[in-house]
Amino acid sequence: MKVVRTVAALREVLADTGRVGFVPTMGALHEGHLSLVQAARAAGGTVVLSVFVNPTQFDEASDLDAYPRDERRDLTLAEQAGVDLVFVPGVGEMYPDGFATTVSVTGPLTETLEGAHRGRAHFDGVATVVAKLLLAVRPDAAYFGEKDAQQVVVVRRMVRDLGLPVEVVASPTARDTDGLALSSRNARLSAGERAQAAAIPRVLQSVVDAAARGETEASLLRDRARAGLTAAGLAVEYVEIADPDTLEPVAQCSGRELVLVAARAGAVRLIDNMPLGGSR
Amino acid sequence: MKVVRTVAALREVLADTGRVGFVPTMGALHEGHLSLVQAARAAGGTVVLSVFVNPTQFDEASDLDAYPRDERRDLTLAEQAGVDLVFVPGVGEMYPDGFATTVSVTGPLTETLEGAHRGRAHFDGVATVVAKLLLAVRPDAAYFGEKDAQQVVVVRRMVRDLGLPVEVVASPTARDTDGLALSSRNARLSAGERAQAAAIPRVLQSVVDAAARGETEASLLRDRARAGLTAAGLAVEYVEIADPDTLEPVAQCSGRELVLVAARAGAVRLIDNMPLGGSR
Repeated sequence: MKVVRTVAALREVLADTGRVGFVPTMGALHEGHLSLVQAARAAGGTVVLSVFVNPTQFDEASDLDAYPRDERRDLTLAEQAGVDLVFVPGVGEMYPDGFATTVSVTGPLTETLEGAHRGRAHFDGVATVVAKLLLAVRPDAAYFGEKDAQQVVVVRRMVRDLGLPVEVVASPTARDTDGLALSSRNARLSAGERAQAAAIPRVLQSVVDAAARGETEASLLRDRARAGLTAAGLAVEYVEIADPDTLEPVAQCSGRELVLVAARAGAVRLIDNMPLGGSR
Repeated sequence: MKVVRTVAALREVLADTGRVGFVPTMGALHEGHLSLVQAARAAGGTVVLSVFVNPTQFDEASDLDAYPRDERRDLTLAEQAGVDLVFVPGVGEMYPDGFATTVSVTGPLTETLEGAHRGRAHFDGVATVVAKLLLAVRPDAAYFGEKDAQQVVVVRRMVRDLGLPVEVVASPTARDTDGLALSSRNARLSAGERAQAAAIPRVLQSVVDAAARGETEASLLRDRARAGLTAAGLAVEYVEIADPDTLEPVAQCSGRELVLVAARAGAVRLIDNMPLGGSR
């Protein structure tokens, strides 16, 4: 496995490769990331993984500061998973002096859910860094986790709008034995907060089950979910039932929507979602 | 010469080509555009020219409506100039329903001069459409006219910031026999306005001459230029002496700055610039 830290070195290594599959990450690798690597490997060719804690997508300085960083561990896990090339740029490589360009996806897609709660700058940061990474790696396919559902929709929109020549692949959310969606932030949960957090997948599943039993009233499903999360001790930021393509909230469920949650266990902000119709 | 109207057809034609040189235009081709084609041809390979009157970079609906369009004439001129492939997308091809992405260069570069007078949306429109065109054509080099000096600087910044794999080449401004910079908008000038407009290159040259004689006080050079343009009957929007890379106004000239002008002759807004040190 090769490790490069500059775009120039990356281009040199990838100059004569055939198919490239790409997994962008912020490090703190877990089974969720590694399942994306497996998906990339299954498609064949060279698998590139990037590790870059992108400062421009953090809306809270404390969250950026607390974000776990352990490069040696990440490189070991990447190598074990069969990654061929790891791109680990520094902040100065991605945003050199004088950097002044932002890629924004505007409109409802970035104004709801995470956009409403974390602010527009979050998705501007995501769209800009993903555009830069895709232009640096120039992969045939890029792999993202469905846990960050809105991020996937925003990246798809940006890729289509700009005409970036890459297939965006979303892979199912990896979950721990208690159902909690794997996230680098889980490491910051105390034992008590972890128990609270486990209510998130249980409540999401109960919404999916209720929809499967024929409940179509989104407000009713939302209110029940919010009550369940609050009862578990979580501070709910939002519970929403939304169209999977536009993320616009719906009043009546057709069965193809997502139920999405953001809630805090203690100081740790967690997000998760499930498709009402079962696995996407 | 081939003519294509979709990105898909463009990619098909260009799939197995070697070097590609690209001249993006809004049509109404003149010798300025054709000099860019010559520069592209001199570098070898396939020469692609696009014709797209980009609505998102017009800050005035009347200017967009009045912008000259004559596709047949443009195609004839392009063919005579030796263009290999013309890309003529419709608005729906570039901005299909649901389009929601903007590429912005922020900061001083887009807040001064044209940015200050035409508004931020102008350069957002330019950066977005150029990014899309570069990703559609994927040229080795793209050719822009120095007449739109700030556009060149903004495009260079965007290309560098995003890491688009293209060389940005700026070619000297083509001028008519009276010195007026060639522009598609010149066709809208009455005979009297045309005579007024010819003062622009004369005044710019007088600033260059004064700087060559040792005058370094930017405010003095600006004031004289403004007086000269006003005396010719032009409505001056700005006269500025600015760093050629950052476009920040200077107080003292070192000889490497640009002198830039925007002024109206009647209803027609014209811009022009010259390097104080002679040809760039």
